[in-house]
Amino acid sequence: MIVVKVGGGKDLHVDAIADDIAALTAAGTPLILVHGGAETTNEVAEALGHPPEFVTSESGFVSRRTDRRTLEIFEMVYCGQLNKMWVEALQRRGVNAVGLSGLDGRVFEGKRKDTLRVRVNGKRMVLRDDWTGTVERVNTGLLRLLLNGGYFPVLTPPGASDAGEAINVDGDRAAAMAAAALEAEALVILSNVPGLLRQFPDESTLIRQIPRAHADDFMQYAEGRMKKKVMGALEAIGEGVQRVVFADGRIERPISAALEGGGTQIV
Amino acid sequence: MIVVKVGGGKDLHVDAIADDIAALTAAGTPLILVHGGAETTNEVAEALGHPPEFVTSESGFVSRRTDRRTLEIFEMVYCGQLNKMWVEALQRRGVNAVGLSGLDGRVFEGKRKDTLRVRVNGKRMVLRDDWTGTVERVNTGLLRLLLNGGYFPVLTPPGASDAGEAINVDGDRAAAMAAAALEAEALVILSNVPGLLRQFPDESTLIRQIPRAHADDFMQYAEGRMKKKVMGALEAIGEGVQRVVFADGRIERPISAALEGGGTQIV
Repeated sequence: MIVVKVGGGKDLHVDAIADDIAALTAAGTPLILVHGGAETTNEVAEALGHPPEFVTSESGFVSRRTDRRTLEIFEMVYCGQLNKMWVEALQRRGVNAVGLSGLDGRVFEGKRKDTLRVRVNGKRMVLRDDWTGTVERVNTGLLRLLLNGGYFPVLTPPGASDAGEAINVDGDRAAAMAAAALEAEALVILSNVPGLLRQFPDESTLIRQIPRAHADDFMQYAEGRMKKKVMGALEAIGEGVQRVVFADGRIERPISAALEGGGTQIV
Repeated sequence: MIVVKVGGGKDLHVDAIADDIAALTAAGTPLILVHGGAETTNEVAEALGHPPEFVTSESGFVSRRTDRRTLEIFEMVYCGQLNKMWVEALQRRGVNAVGLSGLDGRVFEGKRKDTLRVRVNGKRMVLRDDWTGTVERVNTGLLRLLLNGGYFPVLTPPGASDAGEAINVDGDRAAAMAAAALEAEALVILSNVPGLLRQFPDESTLIRQIPRAHADDFMQYAEGRMKKKVMGALEAIGEGVQRVVFADGRIERPISAALEGGGTQIV
């Protein structure tokens, strides 16, 4: 089993990714896809007059302020526009894709942080009416039911809280948890860079290999959005996934290239 | 098996519908839900600066002009905002709902009308670049897989063309086809009126019962959106569904009330 994580599609070669999935699944490789959509959500939120806000947690992580209206827009983009874009791209290539959010069948289940402790301009605040949470369990039952039935799962946030509420969860962590729960051989994380760079954004400084025992040390090279991706990778490794690859999602055969040794290999 | 069709949720008592589904499924009644979202799609399309357009086919039916951007907005509303609204409402009540569009696993499959013959201001025109189609087959395999696995399917347009493209399909017809394919005992169509009215919108003129043999004659009482609903009902009857009920979706226990004889019963 290979779990592939992609963003929303901006700066990615969607057709090449879908072609590669079709070729790999036709050759018998069991795969699932997990996608995000943060950038498009920002744009749609702006267009709908409810611009995005970001807050910094006490531990220094930046996350989206998710009030009820933001959650609705988030679902429109992740579950509507982008999930169906991926499903259609795969269906057109004969892959019998089924798109699911983490809310459907509680695929991604976890705790809602009903009060969010954040810093705004250095000042501590507690936010209520926020719909953010963390994936703690993956409902592999539903995924295996679909896989055994010949369907190709295309997964996306939000997740489900224990009470069945929709919660904004991090897609990279969700993918890492799915890889661990499905005992995947590899988690392939595609983005618009060739992998982890020693000096971002200089692509000639690509780190080719990282021994899993020293993966923690490489957190220092992660910039911006890459921080959460590396954290997801470390979690996947910690949960027993044998191999995590950060690879280029803009090239032909991006998944195959990653499995053949491209990008940054954490092994 | 009971198939319940609802609109997008405007003018419907969403909580009462979800409560009723939870009670009925807990009592062992196998159910699925099919929903629409035309009205909200109009609003979001306006807000995103791509206002809705409607065209009239040569046979007199009004349908949404669905260019690629409209299809995207349609998916945002139907598959994102509204499908996840229904799934969340059910998950919060302990119903293990799984939302699917007709594109997912090709649940609703049919032909794309790649050229659409329409009348605009009385003049005949042929539209290309339109993503509209008609449901011809329902993938009951995926629905039964989910039902047997203990999941509750929540279905919505779009459908899938034979080539795997997303197509705007009519939700009422999709629900009718699903009811027929699943050999449902009843198709319950909930809307913001008490049923079929002899003199729309006078609710005191509710038609309580229609013998199935004479269902065609009642098409004359259908106004506006109700036309397609009655057409869906006639199709369901034609395909062997024993009972179709047009009932009030604004009241408590709306599905149970319909099954107990409320609304307009076509039997």
